[in-house]
Amino acid sequence: MLTENKAKSLKLNEDRLFSSDPIQRDIARELYANVKNLPIISPHGHTDPSWFSKNENFGNPTELFIAPDHYVYRMLYSQGHDLDGLGVPRRDGVPAHDPREAWRTFAENYHLFRGTPSRMWLDYVFANVFGLDVRLSSQTADTYYDTIDEALKSDDFKPRALFEQFNIEVIATTEGPTDTLDHHHEILNSGWTGGKVVSAYRPDAVIDPEHEQFTGAMAQFAEITGEDVYSWKSYLAAHRKRRQDFIEVGTTSSDHGHITARTADLSEVEAETLFQKILKGDFTAEDAEIFRGQMLTEMARMSLDDGLVLQIHPGAYRNHNKALFDSHGRDKGADVPSQTEYVESLKPLLNKFGNDPRLSIIVFTLDETSYSRELAPLAGHYPAMKLGPSWWFHDSPEGMRRFREMTTETAGFYNTVGFNDDTRAFLSIPARHDVARRVDCAFLARLVAEHRLEIDEAHELATDLSYNLAKAAYKL
Amino acid sequence: MLTENKAKSLKLNEDRLFSSDPIQRDIARELYANVKNLPIISPHGHTDPSWFSKNENFGNPTELFIAPDHYVYRMLYSQGHDLDGLGVPRRDGVPAHDPREAWRTFAENYHLFRGTPSRMWLDYVFANVFGLDVRLSSQTADTYYDTIDEALKSDDFKPRALFEQFNIEVIATTEGPTDTLDHHHEILNSGWTGGKVVSAYRPDAVIDPEHEQFTGAMAQFAEITGEDVYSWKSYLAAHRKRRQDFIEVGTTSSDHGHITARTADLSEVEAETLFQKILKGDFTAEDAEIFRGQMLTEMARMSLDDGLVLQIHPGAYRNHNKALFDSHGRDKGADVPSQTEYVESLKPLLNKFGNDPRLSIIVFTLDETSYSRELAPLAGHYPAMKLGPSWWFHDSPEGMRRFREMTTETAGFYNTVGFNDDTRAFLSIPARHDVARRVDCAFLARLVAEHRLEIDEAHELATDLSYNLAKAAYKL
Amino acid sequence: MLTENKAKSLKLNEDRLFSSDPIQRDIARELYANVKNLPIISPHGHTDPSWFSKNENFGNPTELFIAPDHYVYRMLYSQGHDLDGLGVPRRDGVPAHDPREAWRTFAENYHLFRGTPSRMWLDYVFANVFGLDVRLSSQTADTYYDTIDEALKSDDFKPRALFEQFNIEVIATTEGPTDTLDHHHEILNSGWTGGKVVSAYRPDAVIDPEHEQFTGAMAQFAEITGEDVYSWKSYLAAHRKRRQDFIEVGTTSSDHGHITARTADLSEVEAETLFQKILKGDFTAEDAEIFRGQMLTEMARMSLDDGLVLQIHPGAYRNHNKALFDSHGRDKGADVPSQTEYVESLKPLLNKFGNDPRLSIIVFTLDETSYSRELAPLAGHYPAMKLGPSWWFHDSPEGMRRFREMTTETAGFYNTVGFNDDTRAFLSIPARHDVARRVDCAFLARLVAEHRLEIDEAHELATDLSYNLAKAAYKL
Repeated sequence: MLTENKAKSLKLNEDRLFSSDPIQRDIARELYANVKNLPIISPHGHTDPSWFSKNENFGNPTELFIAPDHYVYRMLYSQGHDLDGLGVPRRDGVPAHDPREAWRTFAENYHLFRGTPSRMWLDYVFANVFGLDVRLSSQTADTYYDTIDEALKSDDFKPRALFEQFNIEVIATTEGPTDTLDHHHEILNSGWTGGKVVSAYRPDAVIDPEHEQFTGAMAQFAEITGEDVYSWKSYLAAHRKRRQDFIEVGTTSSDHGHITARTADLSEVEAETLFQKILKGDFTAEDAEIFRGQMLTEMARMSLDDGLVLQIHPGAYRNHNKALFDSHGRDKGADVPSQTEYVESLKPLLNKFGNDPRLSIIVFTLDETSYSRELAPLAGHYPAMKLGPSWWFHDSPEGMRRFREMTTETAGFYNTVGFNDDTRAFLSIPARHDVARRVDCAFLARLVAEHRLEIDEAHELATDLSYNLAKAAYKL
Repeated sequence: MLTENKAKSLKLNEDRLFSSDPIQRDIARELYANVKNLPIISPHGHTDPSWFSKNENFGNPTELFIAPDHYVYRMLYSQGHDLDGLGVPRRDGVPAHDPREAWRTFAENYHLFRGTPSRMWLDYVFANVFGLDVRLSSQTADTYYDTIDEALKSDDFKPRALFEQFNIEVIATTEGPTDTLDHHHEILNSGWTGGKVVSAYRPDAVIDPEHEQFTGAMAQFAEITGEDVYSWKSYLAAHRKRRQDFIEVGTTSSDHGHITARTADLSEVEAETLFQKILKGDFTAEDAEIFRGQMLTEMARMSLDDGLVLQIHPGAYRNHNKALFDSHGRDKGADVPSQTEYVESLKPLLNKFGNDPRLSIIVFTLDETSYSRELAPLAGHYPAMKLGPSWWFHDSPEGMRRFREMTTETAGFYNTVGFNDDTRAFLSIPARHDVARRVDCAFLARLVAEHRLEIDEAHELATDLSYNLAKAAYKL
Repeated sequence: MLTENKAKSLKLNEDRLFSSDPIQRDIARELYANVKNLPIISPHGHTDPSWFSKNENFGNPTELFIAPDHYVYRMLYSQGHDLDGLGVPRRDGVPAHDPREAWRTFAENYHLFRGTPSRMWLDYVFANVFGLDVRLSSQTADTYYDTIDEALKSDDFKPRALFEQFNIEVIATTEGPTDTLDHHHEILNSGWTGGKVVSAYRPDAVIDPEHEQFTGAMAQFAEITGEDVYSWKSYLAAHRKRRQDFIEVGTTSSDHGHITARTADLSEVEAETLFQKILKGDFTAEDAEIFRGQMLTEMARMSLDDGLVLQIHPGAYRNHNKALFDSHGRDKGADVPSQTEYVESLKPLLNKFGNDPRLSIIVFTLDETSYSRELAPLAGHYPAMKLGPSWWFHDSPEGMRRFREMTTETAGFYNTVGFNDDTRAFLSIPARHDVARRVDCAFLARLVAEHRLEIDEAHELATDLSYNLAKAAYKL
């Protein structure tokens, strides 16, 4: 509907995301100046470890920015642009498409992203990583494509070079329970000193009986661990083994993406009985819920031994669009948050282990109504529980602001854990951390300007929120 | 409790609803200057088409401003003022009352409206339509009454004159499935060139088996369509016919006010069976839910043929106050929002037709928690789905601000559809659109001032939000 | 993690909690200047009446500020500090602890409270009540302890002296249905003219069949009233008697802390049958719900006779931490809000008595999602219903701001009832009212600065919100 008619300049304002009120802005500037160059701690994300083990150049601009980024193509899709033309992979492979044409479609529709975090992250990458100084539009589409395409072929844009340029101190990838961790071992053995890459243990495929890969994953799980895995005891032993495998490549956390926050505290007999029911495939949805819930409690129990931090990421209704799931599979922008209850759900786990300060349970939500009503009150009481940052759809300036406004007064800042970029879009990582640091500085600046916090405290907090808390909470 | 002791002046400030921060205010002024005089597109509302067909003068001030406006009398009622004295119609007719005394009660209690949108709309009308320059109070009650009463008798205050003065390009009324549309035909045949009045097809009375008028409405529906209507096929045919009748008077949308957002996707046999159960009156609440849900899907299917936009307005718990319903009937200010679920509810419909970009489904909510959690993520993915503006209790400056803050980052601006005034208070229409334009300009100004949007983009967006999006989304 | 290295000054800024925007700040200053010295009306709280009857000095700083204040020790506990060391009472008595060491732990961890209302209240008390001018930290811990400890021994810091110094006009305590009210009678008979202390009737222990004290409380209830209490009629008669006992010591309200907002409207026969079932102990959770709900309706019926205001405080999930409950009992910072429904829940009560403007039902919530969706629409319609202020976890600057932003546009200001401090922390009462007045003035200032309210109206409102509304709503 609205296309750019002439090339506009692209220039990132130094004060972006700060309040326009001069008093708040000046405080925010001062706070930000102290944290902008801190190294990046990325304790939870979805980058591909093979990038850092193989260190090969990335592909073309469309392969890098459009086809793998569901934030980008979901918006284009919502306005009627078909995914094939954008090069988004189907189940049976990448559809025939012209990458430059895909890029042009993206450029022509760049106005759709106005007011979204994607726009902010992309502009940051275009300006700061690729040195572009005109705004993306139909008119500048080819300039963009050629500039980025050429840069991607150079050594400076190989994954390790970017990692170092981005000032990343440590990044965590996420791997499944049957992953060989070969890429991680290769990185460790490569002698690369420029960056630290660790994994996170994400065993959903062998914990969620309703996961489409459950049966196959269990078989692989048996194979990779050398355990029986079909008795409750050896199944748990297999998890313990794999956690050790992960710990060997630097892993400090496990991660769990269940549909709800349900936990359970079954006796060993009950657990074994339920597990056998699950394995027979003769279980109800409620059985599956309890099983997943019990496994969170089991993971917490293992954490008391091996020290892994337990992350719970509930509330995503996955694969809402059946036709799209059938043609394209998982993670194609058709996941939607749903209402999520925490008070009853977390009680079994918190009553079992929540009073133990050695344990660290980091809870996330896609349901912002739980911030002030459930999560901040729980985290403001239980020693083991901390709040993950605003997540996914809420990893955005307004989302971050709401998170701070709705959690700080009850949980304080020190029951939160800094920022997670949670992304597979490697190039956007500095942009995302920059947005988080700016929004936190802006929030702190408001508190200082309204005389609710002293400036020396704000400085300490800015550093803690940008760097220290993530490092401490994730033991990195 | 608090009455005014001397007449205060009434003057609408040029900067109302803009931030007091000079940087934001100046940007908002600039944006607003470009959109304030754009014609009004009113794609959804409840004005009476007979006003425009007959073009008769309105009644006295109380008949115009108090007795029909549940925003006004619900607030007075909540503070103990009885409805009879205000002239609010009972089921058995308008109670005996003194219109001037009713007006005085309203005036004495005008402080109750402080901080409400009603106050803002009313002051706009008093100042801009009636030229009043003192604030309404017990002291000025009679001045107001006389001034307005006299004006209402003049030709300049006839409906068509006001329509033209208000710069309304097109307005949609809402009619039921058994309406003859005579007033619409009269308007079309009258040769009036000053304004366009269309209808919207609102078939709740023959779609909701729990509607108190269902049985009678079905009989009339048969009569007006000449269809049997008691077989599933002919019932659907009757809807198709009536949609054509509506399309003939310019209708571009249907509208559905169900208690939930539930949709269904039954086979033809299941649908016919359920329909027969409904007709026999031997159905459960769940049956009624599924039937209403199936009919949304049927309406979408018809829309693919005839092009009508599908509006879904769920979540109003109607007639909460039983005694009031018994004495006064529907729509008397006793409707209350209730929690509304969308992710599961809309899935059948969206899985059936949501991937078709030819279809336009506009979804509203009275449950603000769904903005960022459910609606923006759904609208930011499905090509057929768009978000209606903040509605009813949330059609207010703070409500509009929350809507933008909670939807933009995920759905963008272009999955929204501009403003709906949704009112039966004809005189308030310019005031309501003015509030919406101002609040949108203020929101855009904040984005520009915080360097999250460029000024040229904000100008385009201001025009789109004020005019283009409504026109495009509703095909007007 | 972060401790202060040198003593920072403590100085309460005159503009705290006002916007940093000069236009808004100047208006807020002007509004606040007029209300800051208004007497305190404290219509709902949990101070101990024996303080005012006996007028004995308070204990040491730890006994006063840490051990009884779950806002304080829950935060320390959440970060791994054990409750015994802080002197928090166990079921079997106060654990051995060194009060000065407890205070040092608090001081060392004072950074945990950054951004919380506790920090703001505490600093106010430290500066304004104890004249401290350095910030609390590990370095200043002993200075604080000694200064406060010494002051607490003086006559100026006895309860009545503080009451008068705090400019409290009237305070309500809360007592159970078996309380003798001796302290209240002593206060009344003491000839003290410096302050008015009334009670509130909180009969949860004999109304909630699931209350751990129910059986014992019923026996005491029989004894203190001389009624049978085990027949429905005499049970109600006992309530009526006790309400009169409370009214004799100035009580103007009853208060009810149920887990949900459920109400009921049973026939007398149904109620008697249910009551007998309850007494036999042979009841379901649903029976208990209905019984509590019916008792709210009974309380409303009694209110129509004796004039008590009915307060409903639902939504706290009590004693979430089982181990802590077992060791320490109730009210130890382990209560968590849960989702609360009002539309269906309040319908029986509101349909029975909600249209009677003689009745005053004040409804609170811990679920902020209900503000704009349910509570404001209900209070903006029913003559008997008013909204209590933002409560407990939401009694905070951001919580108060959200309350005004989400209720005012639908319910106006005059369906709200001013501020409740709801505290057992006597010394913090002026601080809490000061925060409320400042936040309300800041909110009004924004409305004025955005030309949504005139300055003369804001002045009236500031006084109403700070003083008049509470006095009127609670008939004090």
